[in-house]
Amino acid sequence: MKIGIDVDSGERPFYELVEGVLQSSLIYTDSVFFVIGDSSRIRSFFSQISEVDNIVLVDAKDVIGMDESPIIGVKRKKNSTIVTGVNLLKNKTIDILFSPGNTGATVAASVLGLGLYPGLRKPCMGSFFPRMEQGETFILDVGANPEAREDYLYHNSILGTAFYKNIFDVKVPKIGLLSVGTEFGKGSGVIKKAFSYLSGIDGFIGNVEPYNIIDGSVDVVVCDGFTGNTVIKVAESLKKLFSHKFKNYMSGSVDGSFAKKMILNPLKKMIVGSRNISELTESMLPVYYGAAPLLGVMGGVLVGHGMSGKNDVINAIEFALFMYERGTQRSIFSEWKKNK
Amino acid sequence: MKIGIDVDSGERPFYELVEGVLQSSLIYTDSVFFVIGDSSRIRSFFSQISEVDNIVLVDAKDVIGMDESPIIGVKRKKNSTIVTGVNLLKNKTIDILFSPGNTGATVAASVLGLGLYPGLRKPCMGSFFPRMEQGETFILDVGANPEAREDYLYHNSILGTAFYKNIFDVKVPKIGLLSVGTEFGKGSGVIKKAFSYLSGIDGFIGNVEPYNIIDGSVDVVVCDGFTGNTVIKVAESLKKLFSHKFKNYMSGSVDGSFAKKMILNPLKKMIVGSRNISELTESMLPVYYGAAPLLGVMGGVLVGHGMSGKNDVINAIEFALFMYERGTQRSIFSEWKKNK
Repeated sequence: MKIGIDVDSGERPFYELVEGVLQSSLIYTDSVFFVIGDSSRIRSFFSQISEVDNIVLVDAKDVIGMDESPIIGVKRKKNSTIVTGVNLLKNKTIDILFSPGNTGATVAASVLGLGLYPGLRKPCMGSFFPRMEQGETFILDVGANPEAREDYLYHNSILGTAFYKNIFDVKVPKIGLLSVGTEFGKGSGVIKKAFSYLSGIDGFIGNVEPYNIIDGSVDVVVCDGFTGNTVIKVAESLKKLFSHKFKNYMSGSVDGSFAKKMILNPLKKMIVGSRNISELTESMLPVYYGAAPLLGVMGGVLVGHGMSGKNDVINAIEFALFMYERGTQRSIFSEWKKNK
Repeated sequence: MKIGIDVDSGERPFYELVEGVLQSSLIYTDSVFFVIGDSSRIRSFFSQISEVDNIVLVDAKDVIGMDESPIIGVKRKKNSTIVTGVNLLKNKTIDILFSPGNTGATVAASVLGLGLYPGLRKPCMGSFFPRMEQGETFILDVGANPEAREDYLYHNSILGTAFYKNIFDVKVPKIGLLSVGTEFGKGSGVIKKAFSYLSGIDGFIGNVEPYNIIDGSVDVVVCDGFTGNTVIKVAESLKKLFSHKFKNYMSGSVDGSFAKKMILNPLKKMIVGSRNISELTESMLPVYYGAAPLLGVMGGVLVGHGMSGKNDVINAIEFALFMYERGTQRSIFSEWKKNK
């Protein structure tokens, strides 16, 4: 696999992301890693990097900022990391691109540079969500396109189902339409119209509610990008809230008795060291927004969280390799053509 | 205060809710509790209830089911608990009504029976959300009206701000518009239009993201009922998911060593008994969907969660009393008239 990693447009310093690439390059020696960013800065920080066989530095001096207008940024900054990355994808230098930058810019650059599937109006972006028991639920759109339209939701369903089939080897994934109640007729006008559109899809189980995302009753949950983005961000916020409240709880006394406190505190630390509580909640409630596949564009794009650091890069690379080996992109495209 | 409690249209058995009323009636001896439901069944279950001075049984044999069409249910079932309750509000027999039944039916019965504030098109429903540090954030609409329209969002803002002012004695609550990014221009077309509408409101801080609900940077978060309902339900689901994962974690070994497991397990139980983990997460992350005030109708209505049991009834009664004593309803109405 040849993968491009945009190390300069995220919110964390470039060297954290480069470290992730370096580590992965040692494990996946058959893959080639194209590090997209300010090459001279990267080289001066990692003096030996030019000698790593399977790392290629691709110089891109510009960055599209998080608050910049995506379309204007993409059109004006031809030498930005994201436009450079998309060009590498377009001319087949790389198979997959990972960028933790401005999501809108990544989406715009991909649509403008690679083009959409024939017949598709808008791309979408999916994310995995943890469940109570085994498995994971795939939710989309989580932010490529905030507007809800019934045909967009229908397209999201086809793309999401195709992705799930390929990734999890499930023949007919159960697909649900996120709404405010499971009964037909619940929700906004768009949701009601989308319900009819989706009825023709194998595996469509009707409306679902947020609880169904975690209870294992559905594999693919479809919604507009505004709602999906909210779901993911509420989940991330709740994790932080829980970590915080739990730290407070664990650093306080169990029952107010001083003696008990003295006895229990060291043990509390052993069980859930206060430093590790964030890691604990993270491991219990993973939300892989870290590498959300952008579906519907003619190329493999993984959209990273702005806060992506070393481990997120490593995970994204692993996920990219998994997709590459399963031929996920080709498989989704052929399902799309069948369904249109 | 005179309060009506619909004990028959929720998802839990009536006697659990009646027990909550009985318990509250002993504490708040100055209040009168109107128990709305199948009186003969209630009397046969609680033989002494007729002798409780401050409890009045109001017979209503019908119930509008959770899956029933709200409008049709309200129009046909004149003897349902919710229509009966709204009538009691209308003729001033009670000051506040609490119902854990079909939310749509409660909203429809209230709008049809009590009427909306002059100039208002749709009512809305708010809910408190916990924060990292002190205080609570009020989010609305959480499900009275799933359709987003910029003027609805503007109305929600006025009502929510008025409510927050009264409840928390805050002169100018900070109000934010929930979107997929904090920058102006992020979000759907409706959100962009609503941004202009809201700009005229004192305390408007612009777009906010889900994380801001918990970080204390905003007091009132405005969104459409579809998004708000999703926020609340994702939060509830995450609590369940966390409880579940945490139970699994605590019942497992800390580091796989059998000896350590034997030593630590009883202590783990002391710290967080596995039975109490749900209560722990509940206490750490309260989401008071239990008694969401319905704003914009000419009367005091609290919409309960369908799963409301004894403690939820007790909490709802306490909250109703708090609102009653502060004259919340009058205060919101007068703010509305000022702003229109």
